[in-house]
Amino acid sequence: MKVAGIMSGTSVDGIDVAILEFEHHFKVLGFHTVPYPDDVRQAILSVSNTQVHTADIARLSYLLGELYAAAVKETCTKIGIPLAALNLIGSHGQTIFHEGEPIDYLGYRIASTMQIGEPAVIAKRTGVTTICDFRADDIAAGGKGAPLVPAVDFRIFRHPEISRIALNIGGIANITVIPANAYIENIEAFDTGPGNLVMDALMGDARFDRNGETARRGKVDQELLRELLRNVYYDQAPPKTAGREQYGPDFVARFAHLKQADAVATAAELTVHTIAKAIARYPGAEEVIVSGGGTHNAYLMERLGAVLKQEVRTATEYGIDNDAKEAIAFAILAYESFHGRPGNVASATGAARAVILGKCSVP
Amino acid sequence: MKVAGIMSGTSVDGIDVAILEFEHHFKVLGFHTVPYPDDVRQAILSVSNTQVHTADIARLSYLLGELYAAAVKETCTKIGIPLAALNLIGSHGQTIFHEGEPIDYLGYRIASTMQIGEPAVIAKRTGVTTICDFRADDIAAGGKGAPLVPAVDFRIFRHPEISRIALNIGGIANITVIPANAYIENIEAFDTGPGNLVMDALMGDARFDRNGETARRGKVDQELLRELLRNVYYDQAPPKTAGREQYGPDFVARFAHLKQADAVATAAELTVHTIAKAIARYPGAEEVIVSGGGTHNAYLMERLGAVLKQEVRTATEYGIDNDAKEAIAFAILAYESFHGRPGNVASATGAARAVILGKCSVP
Repeated sequence: MKVAGIMSGTSVDGIDVAILEFEHHFKVLGFHTVPYPDDVRQAILSVSNTQVHTADIARLSYLLGELYAAAVKETCTKIGIPLAALNLIGSHGQTIFHEGEPIDYLGYRIASTMQIGEPAVIAKRTGVTTICDFRADDIAAGGKGAPLVPAVDFRIFRHPEISRIALNIGGIANITVIPANAYIENIEAFDTGPGNLVMDALMGDARFDRNGETARRGKVDQELLRELLRNVYYDQAPPKTAGREQYGPDFVARFAHLKQADAVATAAELTVHTIAKAIARYPGAEEVIVSGGGTHNAYLMERLGAVLKQEVRTATEYGIDNDAKEAIAFAILAYESFHGRPGNVASATGAARAVILGKCSVP
Repeated sequence: MKVAGIMSGTSVDGIDVAILEFEHHFKVLGFHTVPYPDDVRQAILSVSNTQVHTADIARLSYLLGELYAAAVKETCTKIGIPLAALNLIGSHGQTIFHEGEPIDYLGYRIASTMQIGEPAVIAKRTGVTTICDFRADDIAAGGKGAPLVPAVDFRIFRHPEISRIALNIGGIANITVIPANAYIENIEAFDTGPGNLVMDALMGDARFDRNGETARRGKVDQELLRELLRNVYYDQAPPKTAGREQYGPDFVARFAHLKQADAVATAAELTVHTIAKAIARYPGAEEVIVSGGGTHNAYLMERLGAVLKQEVRTATEYGIDNDAKEAIAFAILAYESFHGRPGNVASATGAARAVILGKCSVP
C-alpha cells in the first residue's frame, strides 16, 4: 500500500509531501516540497487567527485543495511512480486556528481547531481516498488535539527488543518513551523543558546559534544553571506540558548579566540537563533518537552525548529526514485510520481515550 | 439500518432531526426540531458570509457539534428508540458561505462552500458514525454544490411503474422528473421559474398570500401574463437555473399598474403556467407531487390541479412532512454515501459526474 502524507506547517513555507510504502513496516519512497506562491502565503497569513471574511476562508480552503493535489502529483512524477499507484492520502491541512485548552463559549466548555485545504478536492483531483482533520477527533475526545507526533514516533521507532526514547528538540524539547515491544498504551510523551528557544532568544538578531559555535566559546555559569534547574516543573511526573510563554522575556532576562557566549552556553546546558533529568526517569531506555532543529547544533548534540548514558542518534540514521518527518507522520496516521486503528496517544494529548483520527473523502 | 439526518437551514431557526429506518425502502420513524438558543443563533448570523474572527468560526463549529449531538439524543428519546440503535448520522451542517459559481481567485477558478458543526464531535458524543460536508464533493466535481434535493426526490418518489414529477414551490419553483423505473442518470431537474417570491413581494407587509385568498379575489391580467410568459427562459431546454435576482424589484414593478389582488392573481397564474410549460415537456409523467411553502396556498394548488393534466398531490400524502424533508434528505444521502453510491444529480448541479458525497467521521 502506497500512502502520501501532506503537511504544510505554521511557518507557511510550502507544501511537504512524503510518499511511503507499507508492507510489514514502511519505507519512505520519496519526499518533495512545493513552495507556496507568495500570494497564497499572504492569503493564508491573512486568515490565520485573525479578523477575516468568511468567503476568504472558504475560497482559500478549496484553492489549497487544488494546490495539495498538484503537489502530490508533482511528487509522484519526481519519485517516478504513477499517481494511480497511490492508495491513500493523509492531509494535515493548513492550521488557521488552534485552541486545545477549552474556553467558556456560549455556556459550554469548547476547545477547537481549524485546518483548511478541502480534501474532497484532493480526492477528486488525484483519484485517491483522502483523510483529513486528524486533530478534530482528539479534541472531540477531550484532548488538546496536539501533539500527534508521539503516536508516529511509536510507529517509526518501536522495536521488539530495544527500548527507545524519541527526543524532539524544537523551541520546546519533548520526548516519547517507547519501551521494547510496547503497545501504544505503554508509551509516554511529555515536554522536558526548553529546546532551542532560550538559546535562540539570547542570540538576538543572529536568530540561532549556528552549529553551537557561540555556546562552544562560552563558559557555563554553574550557579545560574543550578538555580534554573531548581524549577519544580523538571521534577514533576508526566504528563506535563511546557508552554513557550514560561520561557519568554522574563526568563531570558535572567541571563542578562552574562556575556552572550556564556549565556548561550548556560542555556544550552539547561536544555541538555532538563532533557537528561526527564530521560533519567527511564533507566531501561537504551537509545535516544533525536530529531528537530536541535540536531543541527553540533555542540548541543555533543553535550547530549556526553551527559546521557544512552546512545544518542539522529532520526536521519533511521531513514527519517528531519524536514520530511511531519509529512511522513500524516501518511502513517492516515494508514492507521484507514485500518480502523486509533492514532492519538491519550496520555500525550490529554484525551479521554485513544480514537481513530480523521475524516475520509473518497474520489 | 437506522439513520438520523440533521439539518439546520439558512433561516437559522433550529436543528431539525429526522430518523429513518431503511429496509428495502425506508420509513420515517420520527422528526423533531430543537430551536437554537438566541445567543447561538446570533453567533451563527455573525459568522455567516461576513467579516469575522477565525476563532469564532472554529469555536462555533465545535459548539454546533455538541448541539447537533444533543438534538439527535433528544430525538431518539422522543421517538423512543435507544441512541445505540442508530447506525449512521448524516449532518448537513450550518452553511456560513456558499459560492457555487466559480470566481477568479489567486489565479484559479474557485467555487466553494462552508458548512460548520464538527462531525467528529457528533460521532464521539453519540457513538455513531457521522457523514458531513455533502456539498463539497459536488463542488470538487465541478458542480454548484446545489441543489442536492433532486437526488433525494429520486430516492423518495421513484416508482417502478409510475412516471412522476416532484415539484417544489419555494421562492423559485423547480421540478425533478423521475421516469418509471428510472436510474438516477435518467432524471432531470431544473428551475421552472417563479414560485412564491413574486406573489410574496406583491403582498408587501403581509409577506405572503395566506391560503391564496388575495389571488382568489383578483382577476388575471391576461395581457401582462402573455407578455411575461414570452420570456425566453421558459422555452429553453434544461438544465437551467432561475436566479432570485431575475424576479427582483424591476420585475415586480411590471405589476405596479394593477390592483393588488389582480397583481397577485396574475403572479400566481405566472407561477402555474411556467410550471405547466416545464411539465409539458414530459407528456409521459403521470403524477405531480408538490412540496414547499406553495403547498399551503390552496388557491395555487387548485389552479395547478386545473391546469395540469396530471394528478396533483402533496408530498405529505407520501409520508414526507414538508418541514422534515431536508432532514430526511440528509439521512438518505448519508445512507447512499455509506453504501458507496453517488448522491448528486450531475445534470442538476452541473457536476461533471455523479460522485459519492460527504466525509465520514467515526466514533
